[in-house]
Order: sequence, then C-alpha cells, then structure tokens
Amino acid sequence: MADGAAPVGLLTQWLTPLAAGRDARGLTRRLRPRAAGDDLIDLAGNDYLGLARDPRVVEAAVAAVREWGAGATASRLVTGTTTLHTELESSLAAFTGHAAGLAFSSGYLANLGVVTALGGAETLVVSDAHVHASLVDACRLSRSRVEIVPHNDVEAVGKALANRNEPHALVLAESVYSVLGDAAPLTALAAVALEHDAVLLVDEAHGIGVTGHGRGGVAAAGLAGLDHVVVTVTLSKALASQGGVVLGPAVLREHLVNRARSFIFDTGLSPAACAAALAALRILTDEPTRPDSIHATARRLADECGVTPSAGAVVSVPMPGPRETVRAAELCLANGVRVGSFRPPSVPDGISRLRLTARAGLTADELDHACHTITAALQEVS
Amino acid sequence: MADGAAPVGLLTQWLTPLAAGRDARGLTRRLRPRAAGDDLIDLAGNDYLGLARDPRVVEAAVAAVREWGAGATASRLVTGTTTLHTELESSLAAFTGHAAGLAFSSGYLANLGVVTALGGAETLVVSDAHVHASLVDACRLSRSRVEIVPHNDVEAVGKALANRNEPHALVLAESVYSVLGDAAPLTALAAVALEHDAVLLVDEAHGIGVTGHGRGGVAAAGLAGLDHVVVTVTLSKALASQGGVVLGPAVLREHLVNRARSFIFDTGLSPAACAAALAALRILTDEPTRPDSIHATARRLADECGVTPSAGAVVSVPMPGPRETVRAAELCLANGVRVGSFRPPSVPDGISRLRLTARAGLTADELDHACHTITAALQEVS
Ligand SMILES: Cc1ncc(COP(=O)(O)O)c(C=O)c1O
Ligand SMILES: Cc1ncc(COP(=O)(O)O)c(C=O)c1O
Repeated sequence: MADGAAPVGLLTQWLTPLAAGRDARGLTRRLRPRAAGDDLIDLAGNDYLGLARDPRVVEAAVAAVREWGAGATASRLVTGTTTLHTELESSLAAFTGHAAGLAFSSGYLANLGVVTALGGAETLVVSDAHVHASLVDACRLSRSRVEIVPHNDVEAVGKALANRNEPHALVLAESVYSVLGDAAPLTALAAVALEHDAVLLVDEAHGIGVTGHGRGGVAAAGLAGLDHVVVTVTLSKALASQGGVVLGPAVLREHLVNRARSFIFDTGLSPAACAAALAALRILTDEPTRPDSIHATARRLADECGVTPSAGAVVSVPMPGPRETVRAAELCLANGVRVGSFRPPSVPDGISRLRLTARAGLTADELDHACHTITAALQEVS
Repeated sequence: MADGAAPVGLLTQWLTPLAAGRDARGLTRRLRPRAAGDDLIDLAGNDYLGLARDPRVVEAAVAAVREWGAGATASRLVTGTTTLHTELESSLAAFTGHAAGLAFSSGYLANLGVVTALGGAETLVVSDAHVHASLVDACRLSRSRVEIVPHNDVEAVGKALANRNEPHALVLAESVYSVLGDAAPLTALAAVALEHDAVLLVDEAHGIGVTGHGRGGVAAAGLAGLDHVVVTVTLSKALASQGGVVLGPAVLREHLVNRARSFIFDTGLSPAACAAALAALRILTDEPTRPDSIHATARRLADECGVTPSAGAVVSVPMPGPRETVRAAELCLANGVRVGSFRPPSVPDGISRLRLTARAGLTADELDHACHTITAALQEVS
C-alpha cells in the first residue's frame, strides 16, 4: 500500500451510485467559478449594501492585513484575539443595542456555538421549522430535546414552552428568513418567551444592515438589550466580509468564551475580515439611509414577479420544479443577470425557487434590464 | 416590553452561578486582546512556518481583496466560488498528492462537512479518543453509530470495524495530535481500514506545512491519493491564513459539493484568505527546507522541558493542575514569552499542560531566552 498499489476504489464504489441518483433526479449541484471581472448584474449574492468592493471596506482590509498579518494565528483564547476583534465586537453591540458581542469565524459557527453553549439536557430548544441549516445542525449538536414548531406559529411555541420539564428553554427564529424572505413575529415571540422563562435567539443574518435602518429586526422591535434576547449576525452578507457575531448580555459573552466549543477550539477570524466588517459598519452608521434602496429594489422585484413583498432583501419566486428553476437561472445568466436557484435540500418546504436578492447601488437601467430578463425567463419555463 | 421595561434578568440568573462555579475551580477563561506591535516571543500560536506576516503572503491578500472584494458574497454554490478558490484547491491537492480538494471557511467546518456527508445510519464512525473538538462535534452531528477507541490503538480500530453491521465505515485520526503533539500510526491505520473496507480520514491541521517536508504525514507515509484515504487540512496554522480544505478523490469532492451542509449553507471563504494560503503554499513549495527549523526548535524545547519530542511543532508539557498552568504561563508572559496554557476541557486526558509551539524563523537568541524563561517558570510553580 505504502508504495501506491491503489486498491479497488472504495470511495469511488461508494459515492458514484449516489452521484448517478442525484443526476437522475435533476438535483446535481455544480460549482461555477466566477472571474474577477465578470460584469453580470448580481441578484444572487448577499452583498445587500453593495459594500464588498467599496474602497473604504477594501482599504480597511488592506490596512489590517498589513498591520496584523494574514491570520489570527490561533484560537481566540490563545493568540487569536486582537484589539481589532474586540473593537468589532463592541461597535457592533453598540450599533445593535446589545451589551456585548463575541465574534466567531463564521455565522455558521456562531449559531453552533451559542445554541450548544446554552443547550443540553436541562434546556428545551423550540425551533421554527424554517430556520437555517446552521441552526438545524446546532439543534442536533445541542444534546437538548428539540421541538420543531410550524413556521411563525407563536401559539405552538407557547405550547411547547408550557409543556416542558426542562428548567431552561431556547426559542430559535430568524428575523428575515433566508430563503422565503419573510419576517418572524419578533414582538410576539419575545413576549411568549418571557412569559415562559425562555431565551429567544434571533438569527439576523438577513436582518443586519437591511431592516430597522440597518440595525436589524430585533432593534426595530425594541427588543435589543433585553436579558432574555440573544442575536446572531453574520458578517458575510450586508457587512460584506466573513464571520459571525453573537450579541447579548455581557454574562452571555463570558459564558460563550468558556463554553462555546466552536469558539474555544477554532482559529480566530482573520484580521482582514474583522476590519472589513468594521468599515462596513461605519459606513452603515454614517449613511443610515443606505438600506432604503434595498427595500425599493426588493419591492420592484416582487412586483414584477408577482410574489409577496419581502421583509428584507430576499425575494422568493416559487417554481414548478428543480429543472425549471435551473433552466430559468440559466436563461437569466445568458442575458447577463445572475439569480439564485434553490432546490431541495436548500429549501425549507421542498418547493424549488428562484431567489433574488435586492442590492443597494443598482442603477435604474440595471434594475430594468434585470426585471425584463427575469420575467421573460419565468414565462419561457412556465 | 417593546419599550424596554427590562424583565428580571433571565440570562443573568441562569449564567451567573455557572460563572461562579468555573471561578471556584480555577477554570475561567478570559480573552486578552493583543496589540499589533507586541514584541513577545510567540510560542503559543500555530503560525508554524512564520508566514502570517511574510510580505509575500500579506501582499497576496492585499491584491486579492482589491481584485475580488472583501467577501465571497454568498455560498460557494451561488456566487461564492471565485477562480481563486479553485486554484487554491487544485494547488493544494497537487502539493499533497490528492486528486481534488474542496475549501471550507474554516477547518472546523471542513471536519463537520466531510464527516456528516459520509456519515449516517449506514456508516460506522470509529474515532480515536484524542481527536479535536471539531471531529468530536462531527461525530455527534453525523447520525452515525460512533465507537471511540483508545488513543493510537490500531487493534481496537480493527475490532470495531470487524464487528460492525453498517456497510460503510470511517476511521478518524490526526496526523499530529493538536494538544499532545504525538503522531498517529498512519500506515497501520490505512492498512486496517483497507482490510475492513473503511475510509480513513486524517486531520492534518498540525501536519500540513510541518511534517513530510511540509506535505503532511499522509504524503510522507505514501498514502496520499489512495481511494480510501481522505485528508482535512486547515489554512489557519502553517498556511498562515483562515479556512480548511478536504482532500481526496474527485468523486469525494463532488459528493461534498452536494451533501456537505457546512459547505452548501455557508458563505465561501474570503478571497483574501484564499490568496494568503495560496501564497504560503507557494513559499512552502519553493523553500522545501523551511519546515526543518520547526523540528530543530521543537526538539530543543522538548529537551529543555524534559518531555518526549514532538512529531510536529507542538511540545506538550504536563503540569500539576490548572492553576499552576496559568501561573507558569503568566510568568513566561512577564518575561516576554507567550506560551499556551491548556486546561480542561481543552485537553484530551484531563491533564492541564503548557503547550509550546515551535516556529520557523526564531533567532538563536530568542530561542535561548524562551528556553531559559520557560524552565525557570516550570521550576517556580512545581
Ligand atoms: C440565516 C443564516 N444563518 C447563518 C448563516 C451562516 O452564515 P455564514 O455564511 O456567515 O457562515 C447563513 C448564511 O450563510 C444564513 O442565511
Ligand atoms: C486538529 C485540528 N483540527 C481542526 C481544527 C480547526 O481548524 P480551524 O481553526 O482552521 O477552524 C484545529 C484547530 O483549530 C485543530 O487543531
């Protein structure tokens, strides 16, 4: 073996039939690398504020990599915490109205970290049926009993909380849901959580920078800073970078530093990513009307496609099936417009759909062309 | 509530007693932000090749952020795959002797992704008792039956594999263990896996850039490219950046693109991090003797501390308890030397220890001073 006499291919034998099965069902996903200079109109990415290439964000990342180096070099608990990390955490906490924040290397790991650190045999987790994969995985990892309730069903949340034996409970929701683009009833969820001595965890991946003048849905609902409300945000969407932050009371931050495995045992977020997110946050603070054009664009897209307006930037267009979805996206691409095509298992309800994202900074001409292209593609495949 | 009438603090009531319990046991972890200009001798970080601040690495990151922007802007399957990602993947695969690679936004998520994508009811997972938290979490998430075997016990692995009912099996090991710094018996593990139609997954977080002239332990053992051997590497240690890559046959890459939840549902690694790792890889390719000085330094550190030499860069020094560990690390810090102090739950065997990491590029004077400082601190606390 050590000299390379390759055995009959074990992985090949195992995985090839699975690939064939996916192909037969029209569910194969392929990576399409994009070039730096592609001049497509992008309605697929999550750079909602159009800041990923903003010179202020770019140059902040440049300065950070020159000052701090390319990596954090270790776990946040060893050498991986720079003054940049703590500045990002406190700025984001102040902006969103929380006492403290803790940055993780991704939004995914932030969700895993906070749910597992609060979860366990003594905690019931009540999760909305539409939450993101990272929260689903977090539930599985939490070692908690998990109750999945119908989407946006506050009464069901209340029942699950009332009927528990666990001393603690955690309710999971998203301020703007990632695929359907609808909003959670945050005020009612916070009230029912409080009534039953439960913590409400709101994933604001698609809320931060977008809703509540950029401060997110929890701030807009006046819930930020309450001692039973926790928020996670990603730095990878409106904040144009990479990473995730958990926001809440100071005692939660301390708890996560000591108990969140995906924090303790993970290399810190790179300095460049910290600095880019911090620069995006400053722009958002200085230009509070920037999110407005996201909403105008989202309304226009929803109108043209004849679907419900979005609570945020995500406009979701249900399609007859996975093949039609891919075909429509390809037609758009051929006409210079990139849209998202989501198929099982990337959709919460089994319905394939185009996922359009509104972005600040599109010109009127670009938006007109995009609308025209998308409606033509929808007609062609329907 | 919406007008901020803060309820009696739920999280405060829940978490404060837990914090007090940690304090009483001497197990509280605190973040200590470092400044950019600190001139400590660093024997705590994992920047083994000393490349995090190398101008070639730094300027590659700078060029990438200017060319591509600060973030990948979406999942790798949407807009998050740039030509930089695929270049990094194929370069790393070629360097380590695998057919293909797939980059994740962290090593942690790479481990979660590959284990869950190969796991399930039809797969037994056999895990070494000392694997990293990310692999432990991966086991928990895999929905597989998991057998944990004693550290480096090849016979126990064979028994677990032989006694299974599952058609598939996955054996988990690290080429260089992250806390103890010892090596896995890779040749024997690959043989026993092959004998029982199992896949061997080797985490080379601490092998890549360090062992096998930088190509890692799997390559050194002549096992790279076998169809039942899979490797994960991090980009956050010797490669000076952030991220993780799974390496193996092309069919595995395709499988992960379609099935690894932490790939599909996570924003792509930032362009700057890709470019930095790629630049570090080029340096490693051009300067194949660079890892040698890691080993010389590691031998010297082990000698001075009277412990077993390391298989890689990690020198592990067992301590009487957590308080002595923290005290020794503080004494070193006061004398300009940063060392790692690992306490439960960050140690696989409950034994607190200093964790010293050898780094390429230390001067003879720095190393002398570090050795003197560490041995003095060890004496003072023992
Ligand atoms: C709702 C939601 N939560 C969490 C994440 C994970 O964040 P990240 O991609 O920054 O890891 C995403 C998207 O990727 C998301 O849409
Ligand atoms: C053995 C091992 N695997 C995986 C990881 C996770 O890698 P990363 O920090 O790049 O997420 C680490 C360290 O953090 C590690 O030591």
